[in-house]
Amino acid sequence: MESESIEKPEPTGWASKAWALLSAVRSQSPLIQCITNFVSMDLMANTLLSAGASPAMIHSIVEIPDFTPHANALCINVGTLSPDWLPAMKAAAELTCRTGKPWVLDPVAAGASGFRLRACLELVELKPTVIRGNASEVIALSKASVGPTKGVDSSHESTDAVDAAKSLSKASGAIVAVSGAVDIITDGELVVGAHNGVAMMQRITATGCSVTALIAAFVAVDPSHAFEATASALSVFGIAGEMGMKMANGPASLRMHMIDSLHGLDEADVLSRVNITGYR
Amino acid sequence: MESESIEKPEPTGWASKAWALLSAVRSQSPLIQCITNFVSMDLMANTLLSAGASPAMIHSIVEIPDFTPHANALCINVGTLSPDWLPAMKAAAELTCRTGKPWVLDPVAAGASGFRLRACLELVELKPTVIRGNASEVIALSKASVGPTKGVDSSHESTDAVDAAKSLSKASGAIVAVSGAVDIITDGELVVGAHNGVAMMQRITATGCSVTALIAAFVAVDPSHAFEATASALSVFGIAGEMGMKMANGPASLRMHMIDSLHGLDEADVLSRVNITGYR
Amino acid sequence: MESESIEKPEPTGWASKAWALLSAVRSQSPLIQCITNFVSMDLMANTLLSAGASPAMIHSIVEIPDFTPHANALCINVGTLSPDWLPAMKAAAELTCRTGKPWVLDPVAAGASGFRLRACLELVELKPTVIRGNASEVIALSKASVGPTKGVDSSHESTDAVDAAKSLSKASGAIVAVSGAVDIITDGELVVGAHNGVAMMQRITATGCSVTALIAAFVAVDPSHAFEATASALSVFGIAGEMGMKMANGPASLRMHMIDSLHGLDEADVLSRVNITGYR
Repeated sequence: MESESIEKPEPTGWASKAWALLSAVRSQSPLIQCITNFVSMDLMANTLLSAGASPAMIHSIVEIPDFTPHANALCINVGTLSPDWLPAMKAAAELTCRTGKPWVLDPVAAGASGFRLRACLELVELKPTVIRGNASEVIALSKASVGPTKGVDSSHESTDAVDAAKSLSKASGAIVAVSGAVDIITDGELVVGAHNGVAMMQRITATGCSVTALIAAFVAVDPSHAFEATASALSVFGIAGEMGMKMANGPASLRMHMIDSLHGLDEADVLSRVNITGYR
Repeated sequence: MESESIEKPEPTGWASKAWALLSAVRSQSPLIQCITNFVSMDLMANTLLSAGASPAMIHSIVEIPDFTPHANALCINVGTLSPDWLPAMKAAAELTCRTGKPWVLDPVAAGASGFRLRACLELVELKPTVIRGNASEVIALSKASVGPTKGVDSSHESTDAVDAAKSLSKASGAIVAVSGAVDIITDGELVVGAHNGVAMMQRITATGCSVTALIAAFVAVDPSHAFEATASALSVFGIAGEMGMKMANGPASLRMHMIDSLHGLDEADVLSRVNITGYR
Repeated sequence: MESESIEKPEPTGWASKAWALLSAVRSQSPLIQCITNFVSMDLMANTLLSAGASPAMIHSIVEIPDFTPHANALCINVGTLSPDWLPAMKAAAELTCRTGKPWVLDPVAAGASGFRLRACLELVELKPTVIRGNASEVIALSKASVGPTKGVDSSHESTDAVDAAKSLSKASGAIVAVSGAVDIITDGELVVGAHNGVAMMQRITATGCSVTALIAAFVAVDPSHAFEATASALSVFGIAGEMGMKMANGPASLRMHMIDSLHGLDEADVLSRVNITGYR
């Protein structure tokens, strides 16, 4: 992988952009509605709270007309999907779009079944602002194909999915992010890599789900710059992992120190650690 | 805020009352049925276990006739409410009342939607022993009004809700507790403030839900003194937070140390730290 | 309790068997489908991840035909059972059996209601490879009786349930494990006791659920030796608890250190600590 010049923020500009966005989340405390899987609810809510946002796990279709318009962004995650949850996801996505607010899709295990793939493709039709998945998920969505899968874990590297991500971005109009050793972010043309994070984060359940919610919070405070907000959120979450790793003895203590670190990140931490580069 | 004399336990009496109740929970290990939201189940169960109680997260209506009569108290929390969960909540509340056992209501985000507000009001009709919410929730219930809300977080101070709490208590017959920087507890006439706890507890999801379950455990061991049990549980949980905070570096380590502290609280900790005063 | 000679691994053989199985889980990373209760999902997924396995919490019946055949083992846990989840549990169990893969049943609170007991008995009919419960649960299943219960906690010692476990094993064809101060494992004839673990693990919610999932991972990598895999998984999880306990100050820090320890266990830890003996 080589760096290349990009039109979006200069290498030095990314760090100050990321810090500005984290500061805005802390000061504005955006309300993020999460319709997410059962496994991730705890860590996702705590991730949002530690970043300064206000989470609301409200998933019933009967509440969407009253509640969703008050949210600053919506996060939809299909991890423990069942047919009875899908209509609410669609209704919330549609209403969020209609009110001009951003929403973010996490297509967990998109290729694990025909039902799940169709559900994800239907959600993609509803114009998510951002789609974040692992390489296998982004490839499955891009190819619209069900295939052998390692459950919710990726059987591909993020860098294998660059073309799939660009293609999915062009087809959907969404910013597409692919998590991995390097996080890849594309608007269909530009591609950047966010190089923060540590490998052990993959040994903690719901870290991917949680960074998707963090993306929603970052996009909520700067909806007209979803590309920058997405890359910044991935980098900031990765930095929290890096700083947490210095104190961790394994995945469970990393989880704790990562959330503490996300809460405590200061300007110097962010400015010195953000590592987002052009990606070819 | 000024102290005033109150008829219930004297200032010095509250600490020994709180210790007696915690000791009773530890020795009797009351069985607490929790019908609660998905986000809070883990922390709520661990809160009850660390306090010495026995949690049971059993929510299906088909099990209520067999199981609920064995529980010593019931905790109902509407956090991730959907219409299919409401009948079981009502059936369990009704059966608990009919068998003379206490039950506690947590009206999470009561004002977030018309559906949710109506559900909470219907549950209030079923004679909860205690209602614990934040200021926005208690105000919404008291006024029976849906309104702009910060999701599950309060947009009011607890002390703004004293009149609403008294009014809700008189109308419902329940002890009403309002969590906040000061926790307010009222039986409709008397009002006390529990001054324990630390601000960072609000940056941990499900702490409010969990203290509601702890109230259920305290009320279970002394159902004829629900006012004292409620104030004591709030104070004890706050003390666990204070002691945890001495070791914490952020919200995730606070969560851990708070639960460890709740498990380890000894008589000296409780007697020296309980801070419950009359409130005008 | 006295040791007796057994035909399965010699005392010295158990430790190397346990280490071989843990190593195989780490190198093969078996995909474990979990249809489990809401309370346990987080800790169960993190337990599997820290042991090196790949968890997938996929519970909807519509996904079973596509997804279940890819899993290496299935874990079914009835903790927060409702009637709408039961058909998927049965379909997944049937399909897993038909494809010759192992599955493990955790009959949480089996005796808490008639509905729950019948559901568990129906699942037992579907030929689980292993059944793991506490003493009260195994006794309820063995007697097919609903009775006073301490919710999800056992009101019996594991050693009270040896006859019930043998009888349930003979009737069902499953390996039956009874968790407690000593974990009892039987194939209907042979009985061994796994003596690892610490009492405080019972003050952490979902530790029982999580060790059942770990059993599924161990059985997945050696399905023809389910007896040895079950005893080994219980011992290894107990060792993680013992090592975690050295750093813990209460149940919440034990939970963290236990998962860290499970992730970090090395050959010397396992070989020196496995304590499985014949049981009379």
